[in-house]
Amino acid sequence: MSTLRHIGRLWSPGEPARSNAEVVIEDGRIAAIQPSGTAAPGRDDFDCGGLLLTPGLIDAHTHPLYLRPRLEEVKLRSEGVAYSEIAARGGGILKTVRETRAASWEELAQATRRRLEGWRLSGTTTAEVKTGYHLRVEDELAAVSLLCGLRSEEDLPDLAVTYLAAHELPPERRSDRAGYVAEVAAGAARALALGARSCDVFCDQGAFTALEARLILEAAGRAGLRLRIHADELALSGGSQLAGELGADSADHLLRIGEKEAGLLSQAGVAATLCPVTALSMRALPPARELLRAGVTLALGSDHNPGTSGAGSMSLVVYLAVSQLGLSVDEALTAATSGGASSLRLADRGAIRVGMRADLSLWDADHEGALGWAPQLACVASWREGRRSAAA
Amino acid sequence: MSTLRHIGRLWSPGEPARSNAEVVIEDGRIAAIQPSGTAAPGRDDFDCGGLLLTPGLIDAHTHPLYLRPRLEEVKLRSEGVAYSEIAARGGGILKTVRETRAASWEELAQATRRRLEGWRLSGTTTAEVKTGYHLRVEDELAAVSLLCGLRSEEDLPDLAVTYLAAHELPPERRSDRAGYVAEVAAGAARALALGARSCDVFCDQGAFTALEARLILEAAGRAGLRLRIHADELALSGGSQLAGELGADSADHLLRIGEKEAGLLSQAGVAATLCPVTALSMRALPPARELLRAGVTLALGSDHNPGTSGAGSMSLVVYLAVSQLGLSVDEALTAATSGGASSLRLADRGAIRVGMRADLSLWDADHEGALGWAPQLACVASWREGRRSAAA
Repeated sequence: MSTLRHIGRLWSPGEPARSNAEVVIEDGRIAAIQPSGTAAPGRDDFDCGGLLLTPGLIDAHTHPLYLRPRLEEVKLRSEGVAYSEIAARGGGILKTVRETRAASWEELAQATRRRLEGWRLSGTTTAEVKTGYHLRVEDELAAVSLLCGLRSEEDLPDLAVTYLAAHELPPERRSDRAGYVAEVAAGAARALALGARSCDVFCDQGAFTALEARLILEAAGRAGLRLRIHADELALSGGSQLAGELGADSADHLLRIGEKEAGLLSQAGVAATLCPVTALSMRALPPARELLRAGVTLALGSDHNPGTSGAGSMSLVVYLAVSQLGLSVDEALTAATSGGASSLRLADRGAIRVGMRADLSLWDADHEGALGWAPQLACVASWREGRRSAAA
Repeated sequence: MSTLRHIGRLWSPGEPARSNAEVVIEDGRIAAIQPSGTAAPGRDDFDCGGLLLTPGLIDAHTHPLYLRPRLEEVKLRSEGVAYSEIAARGGGILKTVRETRAASWEELAQATRRRLEGWRLSGTTTAEVKTGYHLRVEDELAAVSLLCGLRSEEDLPDLAVTYLAAHELPPERRSDRAGYVAEVAAGAARALALGARSCDVFCDQGAFTALEARLILEAAGRAGLRLRIHADELALSGGSQLAGELGADSADHLLRIGEKEAGLLSQAGVAATLCPVTALSMRALPPARELLRAGVTLALGSDHNPGTSGAGSMSLVVYLAVSQLGLSVDEALTAATSGGASSLRLADRGAIRVGMRADLSLWDADHEGALGWAPQLACVASWREGRRSAAA
């Protein structure tokens, strides 16, 4: 048992913020939330020094399993070189696929671990993590295993692992789309057995069609995986509608949707996972306010990936959700906590409530407005199931 | 003498990036830039581990001297409460003025030092720092002294101190605008004597008129201070034109200007210091591309201030200059290095060249594209006049 003492301000979604509270943790769960000084002192108590405590932040969309970012390409794109031109020169996602395939699993584990460590240090206690840079079903399954193996490392966020073998058509399967789609679908049961929680498909112009996505996701659903979709990011291409029809947990990106699609997602109980960093890089905005108005639950993701998002800090994502997407601080923090938990259907986290996992982040500020003011708010400490991050 | 060894990539404005270079530092200046392994090993050598070295970043617009940020107000604004309503409730800049006036100089020095330390740790080696939250000439001059006193602290960025007594009309001088303007103008000579480099005026709708700004800046120029202007941020209100007429070093913000003003700035050799973070918070963009096309030198600032920008990292500002303002990585990094030096008329820094100050930043990346990919690129070490930051 340990008590977090001298919490200056305690923020949890859907409740008024409290001052001068303390949180008692027992067996990794929140055992009590009470006025400061209620609990008797214990050996493992932690003095929060009057700072802001929130639920640990949940990053609901990431691609961390790759060897190295494509930095030269970032520079070329900033100079106006088109993605198609970059791809023609051997760049783009297929460059990452070549490098990632050529790397050893140990190298990949190290590179991935290093990223995840940084995220935890910045206050993320749960991250959804996708495979998708091998694009060979056997290797995609090995990637699932690698990611599941990292779940036990206490200094990383907890991980919800997603099988995304349908991230892009493999270059060697250009003339055999249907064959690859069928293989990906057939791999879903093994992905589940290896520990994956969900299956995702990049359903968009230039990626997989809504029909292909349906084949894969229906098979994955039958196999027992939960469903997520990269939907309507580049063009309105049927992803949101499919998410609604299949009752997916989440439709992600949604830069091109309108009121109709927002209504579909709402009716079907599909969460909308928005990614402000990549939206910024594409100079497009998801209709966050319209989604909220339609009653859709919002979640947020860093969309960390080797080409268009080096973001790893959810406090930055919350900041952009406020300054760029026009959410209020409470709405953005809700999306980054209970919204992320809804998007991942992890009912045991995302709020500071008795009985929930003791997943908590302590910030270098005394008010949650700081997350709308500082793009890089320092995280002073974080707890995952009650275990404090070593670096704090 | 010390040598920075094993630089993976050396980026300096206006030159092709180099690989496998080493930089020799002597008496705080760059003594040589040469192929790796040229210099004999020395006691004070530093192994750069194959990482990216750039000139130390220059933050050309900041307001760091205040007691605490207005975080509740950030939250209210995110909920749609208008600034005028917040001001009517006792919030806004005048709240900062009340709190800052009530604080002791020691408290203010500590709060300011803590901010500046964070900036240095994130790779900023020179920062322009403004007074402007006392709005009483005697106290504004004391604020100049406080900031000048921090210049000698080695773990902070070097500081270019700006006298900004005309940041806002003091509440107690509402019926005596002309009197306050005259006092501010009369204080310029003492500001210079105390160590200020420049004088700035917030010339805009609701702040000081172009006529008032002219009175103050002309007096400041006669007294020997250099000139800067907060110009045309809220409305096209004459600031850029005044900057051109007076030959100011820099016109800052410029959210509302058009081609005509860009041409004026170019002809007069006025730098444009753009502040992407506050631009984002105002949902407006400065015409960065048009300014470049007109031949204006761009600089970048975090515009750190207690109300609308908690940014302290110039790598974030560079990232936003790329992703939001549409600059290329080279253009944005140039603005954050030699552009900042031009904006501050500090000819001894902003590039890695023999004879320049050894102001350098080493980044957790091997290519400058990282600054367009990662919103929060970690700075591994920085040097100010050859002295390495203690935390590195």
